[in-house]
Amino acid sequence: MIKTDILIIGAGPTGLFTVFEAGLLKLKTHLIDALPQPGGQCSEIYPKKPIYDIPGFPEILAGDLVNNLMEQIKPFEPGFTLGDRAETIEKLEDGTFVVTTLRGVKHNAPVVAIAGGLGSFEPRKPPIPNIADFEDKGVAYIIRDPEVYRDKRVVIAGGGDSALDWTIFLAEVASEVTLVHRRNEFRGALDSVERVAELTKLGKVNLITEAEVKEIKGDAHVTGLGIKHKTEGDIHVDTDYFIPLFGLSPKLGPIGNWGLEIEKNAIKVDNSYDYQTNIPGIYAIGDVNTYKGKLKLILSGFHEAAIMCQSAYQRIFPDKKYVMKYTTVGGVEGFDGSKKEAKKEVVKAIV
Amino acid sequence: MIKTDILIIGAGPTGLFTVFEAGLLKLKTHLIDALPQPGGQCSEIYPKKPIYDIPGFPEILAGDLVNNLMEQIKPFEPGFTLGDRAETIEKLEDGTFVVTTLRGVKHNAPVVAIAGGLGSFEPRKPPIPNIADFEDKGVAYIIRDPEVYRDKRVVIAGGGDSALDWTIFLAEVASEVTLVHRRNEFRGALDSVERVAELTKLGKVNLITEAEVKEIKGDAHVTGLGIKHKTEGDIHVDTDYFIPLFGLSPKLGPIGNWGLEIEKNAIKVDNSYDYQTNIPGIYAIGDVNTYKGKLKLILSGFHEAAIMCQSAYQRIFPDKKYVMKYTTVGGVEGFDGSKKEAKKEVVKAIV
Repeated sequence: MIKTDILIIGAGPTGLFTVFEAGLLKLKTHLIDALPQPGGQCSEIYPKKPIYDIPGFPEILAGDLVNNLMEQIKPFEPGFTLGDRAETIEKLEDGTFVVTTLRGVKHNAPVVAIAGGLGSFEPRKPPIPNIADFEDKGVAYIIRDPEVYRDKRVVIAGGGDSALDWTIFLAEVASEVTLVHRRNEFRGALDSVERVAELTKLGKVNLITEAEVKEIKGDAHVTGLGIKHKTEGDIHVDTDYFIPLFGLSPKLGPIGNWGLEIEKNAIKVDNSYDYQTNIPGIYAIGDVNTYKGKLKLILSGFHEAAIMCQSAYQRIFPDKKYVMKYTTVGGVEGFDGSKKEAKKEVVKAIV
Repeated sequence: MIKTDILIIGAGPTGLFTVFEAGLLKLKTHLIDALPQPGGQCSEIYPKKPIYDIPGFPEILAGDLVNNLMEQIKPFEPGFTLGDRAETIEKLEDGTFVVTTLRGVKHNAPVVAIAGGLGSFEPRKPPIPNIADFEDKGVAYIIRDPEVYRDKRVVIAGGGDSALDWTIFLAEVASEVTLVHRRNEFRGALDSVERVAELTKLGKVNLITEAEVKEIKGDAHVTGLGIKHKTEGDIHVDTDYFIPLFGLSPKLGPIGNWGLEIEKNAIKVDNSYDYQTNIPGIYAIGDVNTYKGKLKLILSGFHEAAIMCQSAYQRIFPDKKYVMKYTTVGGVEGFDGSKKEAKKEVVKAIV
């Protein structure tokens, strides 16, 4: 059982900054996220796109914002359970919560902060009747570890950046890469489209366009695919892996069954005080929450995190009074023994 | 009469970021600040000190944060009335407000956003009976334009960074610089203390310690000072200017008389919605406001500004519905004709 002070569900910008605000209060944190890396949408969906409305940054790439946040929270040594989804919550007699993930990892904390963004990103799956039977048996919707595909035959399906980028990457790793897309046109960064065209000419990528995968063949594992081509009809391709990359779509998911008050697919919170939900001890911050006047901005999640941590502190230490100190005055003391602080003024005589 | 959409009182980080959020909504802004430059405390009190709790900046100097914000808001061409204080407010029949400054400048806007921080910074004045008679006649508490002192005799009083820094600076400008401090020890950056010691040895600064200015002499203008020295008794020093730099202390000031609900020297606002005060159309954001759970963080002001601007938009355009677009999706269109936006994806065929 993983134990912490604040269990944060969602490792997007809001979840990450919660680590910092909790750390200033000497509270430990642990994050759970369905994606294989921290950063949420900023890392998974648009790492190379600029954001213009983060205060103090006239422009910052989403991926850089995540990197900066990771550096900012490093002194507070957060724990991570990544590539796994928070499934169930249970309240113990001592008032603390136990959150169990899909893979069965248990986390225990007196406070749960849901910073789940638009929800956990679930891959869009192609409508192939028996596809579920082959999940983890050659079918994958997210590439967690590209080494799995070394010297194997891989078929990727899709026409966006993700399909293009992984085709380019796996061309150097897999023994054979086939890219299947139902149109001739791809939608992505210009250099990615051009690179795939080049690799196709070099014979390093086998490109099949205006075609769709309709059938998965195999027994204990994928062995081949039935593909329907617009003009050529049915094609068979031998392969070890089939990776449909049709994008991710956010779903509130199992959190929707935790007994929290839900409104418009978001969790209702008390914004007049501390962003707590209808269940005391469970807070919701960032895009996952809703209240009158709510703005779904990254900035909102940051501020909600700061306020929420103060309330969490009171819940965990009902008898202590926390006196806030400005970081410029009090510095930042990491759990790793690090200490950052402003240069002190000296008192020195002139004689 | 200066006309704008949102009149912002206070040009600290919160006031500056309000320009940006208003600009995204195509609302024009104008800022009033008592200090001679934008940035509030960050520029005036601690420009060289690091802040550690701005999201996305593991560390940033307060002065750099202000510079970044100035760059971020540049496309929205805010107006500034600096070195002047908002004195009175009046509501016109058309529902708009007129704010008049100490120097008599009038500003007209349908919405007023008070982002006044801890208040306007008033200099701490030494207890010399007739000092008020010499204000603007040789006595100054803030140095606005150092050129005023070129080739003049200047006496500075104080023992902190401000007194040290201006002594160093004016040693090259004034014909004679005297620094008076009641102790032998100075409290400031080590290199500043050492530089003043060096200038004193070189005869470029006349240092009088363990002494206090007790009397101002002159008629239409300062001509000299009576100084009481701990061991040597009364000293007379001829001078053209007397600049006591004893620090600034924040005062809510005239805003306290505008009929706003005040609690603990701050303005009460409705944090359950839009940070509006008890007077519709007047908002208070940042350190100047108070509500249950309020945190006096720069971050709080940023978020309050974003929410407040949405409400201001509704007030100004009651019949329009604003649909928020993410800057990553919609870009940022400046009033100066500039346009920033994310690189668009291309749709390109591979043949």
